[in-house]
Amino acid sequence: MKDLAYDPDEPIAALATPWGESALAVIRTSGKGSIERMARLFSRPEAVRTAPASTLLLGEILDGPLGKPIDQVMLAVYREPRSYTGQDGVEIFCHGNPSGIDAILGALKAGGFRDAGPGEFTLRGFLNKKMDLTRAEAVKEIVRAKTREAHSLALHRLAGAIEARIDRAKGRITRLMTAIEIQLDYPEDEVEGEITTALPELAEIREELAALAATYRTGRLYQEGVRVALCGKTNAGKSSLFNYLLREERSIVSELHGTTRDYIESLVTIEGLPVLLYDTAGLRSAENPVEVEGIRRSERIIESADLLLYIVDGGEGLGSEDAEFLASRGADRVIGLWNKIDADAGAPPPGFLPVSATTGAGLPEVAREIRRRAIGEAVAPAGDAVIDSARQRDLLERCIAALAEVEEGISAGMPADAVALDLRDALDALGEITGEVTTADILNQMFAGFCVGK
Amino acid sequence: MKDLAYDPDEPIAALATPWGESALAVIRTSGKGSIERMARLFSRPEAVRTAPASTLLLGEILDGPLGKPIDQVMLAVYREPRSYTGQDGVEIFCHGNPSGIDAILGALKAGGFRDAGPGEFTLRGFLNKKMDLTRAEAVKEIVRAKTREAHSLALHRLAGAIEARIDRAKGRITRLMTAIEIQLDYPEDEVEGEITTALPELAEIREELAALAATYRTGRLYQEGVRVALCGKTNAGKSSLFNYLLREERSIVSELHGTTRDYIESLVTIEGLPVLLYDTAGLRSAENPVEVEGIRRSERIIESADLLLYIVDGGEGLGSEDAEFLASRGADRVIGLWNKIDADAGAPPPGFLPVSATTGAGLPEVAREIRRRAIGEAVAPAGDAVIDSARQRDLLERCIAALAEVEEGISAGMPADAVALDLRDALDALGEITGEVTTADILNQMFAGFCVGK
Repeated sequence: MKDLAYDPDEPIAALATPWGESALAVIRTSGKGSIERMARLFSRPEAVRTAPASTLLLGEILDGPLGKPIDQVMLAVYREPRSYTGQDGVEIFCHGNPSGIDAILGALKAGGFRDAGPGEFTLRGFLNKKMDLTRAEAVKEIVRAKTREAHSLALHRLAGAIEARIDRAKGRITRLMTAIEIQLDYPEDEVEGEITTALPELAEIREELAALAATYRTGRLYQEGVRVALCGKTNAGKSSLFNYLLREERSIVSELHGTTRDYIESLVTIEGLPVLLYDTAGLRSAENPVEVEGIRRSERIIESADLLLYIVDGGEGLGSEDAEFLASRGADRVIGLWNKIDADAGAPPPGFLPVSATTGAGLPEVAREIRRRAIGEAVAPAGDAVIDSARQRDLLERCIAALAEVEEGISAGMPADAVALDLRDALDALGEITGEVTTADILNQMFAGFCVGK
Repeated sequence: MKDLAYDPDEPIAALATPWGESALAVIRTSGKGSIERMARLFSRPEAVRTAPASTLLLGEILDGPLGKPIDQVMLAVYREPRSYTGQDGVEIFCHGNPSGIDAILGALKAGGFRDAGPGEFTLRGFLNKKMDLTRAEAVKEIVRAKTREAHSLALHRLAGAIEARIDRAKGRITRLMTAIEIQLDYPEDEVEGEITTALPELAEIREELAALAATYRTGRLYQEGVRVALCGKTNAGKSSLFNYLLREERSIVSELHGTTRDYIESLVTIEGLPVLLYDTAGLRSAENPVEVEGIRRSERIIESADLLLYIVDGGEGLGSEDAEFLASRGADRVIGLWNKIDADAGAPPPGFLPVSATTGAGLPEVAREIRRRAIGEAVAPAGDAVIDSARQRDLLERCIAALAEVEEGISAGMPADAVALDLRDALDALGEITGEVTTADILNQMFAGFCVGK
């Protein structure tokens, strides 16, 4: 860690709860001397100084040593190593008032605390060995998870699911390394043939890590959501279907309206997956410039969506416009819906799912089809380790490539010392995943994506 | 409290921090059995059961007894009477993720906690004698205060500033009551004349309470802000002045844009007062319907504002439009500004303040004038008790009226028992302010304005 021009003991402070009026807000501090610094800003300094680890104190925050009270608060006093950061630290539970929070942060700054950067508390937890990097990354994902399922996958990572997998692979590779190193140390021994016996185990380790790397796509989908655009001709039933899906799904998190006749985006949960659903402007020629702009934006959404739900009024049947739209998009991206089966729609043509946007008939099948298309049948993430960090995937791939080199080398009868070099590279890649080997760059990149206060 | 169909011991739970993604969120619980209920939803139930008062525990929240973990959290365990509510209770510090928070609230509900109503934690604190009603009201105001000064006035109330004033008045009235009651019990004694000696003290108490009631207007201004509209002809310098004031004031809390050519509202701090500043559309005739609508809305803002800053381009001088505007508005509501004194403006006509929206010259005088007009010279709230509750003001006025009746009665030689009745009424009004005497209606009304979780 010597290349980091970073003082890991400097006292830091940050608001850890969202900005706004509320019953409570939490301001977090950590670092060397943070308890003494906090004591000087509290109405009961001795109580802070002598507080046992992990206890709560009621009192007043002052605007400076011996100053005027800013707010009535509870302090939670943490003592190293029993804290999130592994350092001494104090959390302030104050009233959720923006002016009050500002005043407290100002007093802390004057009292020797620096504003914490994004993820800096977690970085300290990592530096003080409270967690490895896969768990630190999980902290960020836990805050961002959009659905219960995504949240529970991230929690699984926080509990060490990735770390356990990586540690197992490291253990197995290390044992192989040891065997090869013995061979290097005692070349006179007749062990030439033995090294090839490692091949099946190497392949097994490589395949296990490849399976873990393959969960990345699933992890990203859970974290970022699947972008699904509803499209079709005007009056095909897009908006009814959109509204039906929103009404059905109780877990709507946000609803953003574009400008009129633009598009509407909503976050819904479909079969546990976070889905960003877009209701696009109907496809039609328009002359009004506002409408023209709306259609242009809708087209941009349609081009970039992961999946398209294309709705046809089954009573009207497939028109030339529909055929044109479907022909110009990849079939793997389009799910055709044959609407109005509650009314006069006949049997759907091949590849279309029968639905009714009015009664909801057929929609469970549509939900399953969205999930199948988005993450495939293969990956069953529940209860299992799923990665969603590009960093972890890239390192896994580096490790997998190194293991493949090892296997090739052994098969080709390469000398043991050359094989050992590739094995070392595989081990290093795994070490970087958990943070045994780190560089300032990796840490900077990783923690920049955090919330401040975490 | 028997008329409240309310179980003050029922376990309640609520999110106490704002909704949204953040490092931390706090979920509060309180009530009989809340510690045992919480223990069953925690990975370390025995640790919760045996936790000393005011301590913190690290562990996992489960989705049910012996269930699966929802999140890694810290628990703060409070034991009656050492808590905000005066009851047993547990606070959960979890990750600030909406899905996770939802899941925890769901588990709490299934585990026997009811969603808390607005202010219900504070209500319990009041019912358990942790604070009187003036302090409970201060809690609400502390969360809502828009500036440091407003926050500090509310904190003063939370510290008991109003309660102390009311208690002093109650003590004095009670002593007078006792004297009168002695007279009623021993009518044979010759004390007839003595009662008139109470007159000066009664007047003094009444005037003190009247002074306190008079702070209501100041309190409301600090809490709600002064609405100041910038108006004047197009190009008189409204927007430059608006932008200058926003740039100068570092404590901008929010900036809301109306629709184009409508108005812009900003919250700024002027001499410690929260000021809602409106930049209105220029006064001019318009034909474009959007502009007509904008001017109509601006006029509505101008009609309802507490103060108008009317700007005239001093280089152009007063025009007939200006004269017409000024003539149609009350002079006490208008502050005339003579703009462009840095350029070609001559001396301002009487009643106008010379300013430059470009250099900022003259603006400190404008700020002082805004403060003077808004709260007057008389009331210096700093460090003093200021009420901002209509309930408190109404009760103070009831008490003041009752005291006036007492004084009149004594002067008119009314019998002591009639005088005692009015004194009792005065005492009751004061008792209602602090909550010695309450009704379900008052409590319902008062706590309905709180944040949930407080």
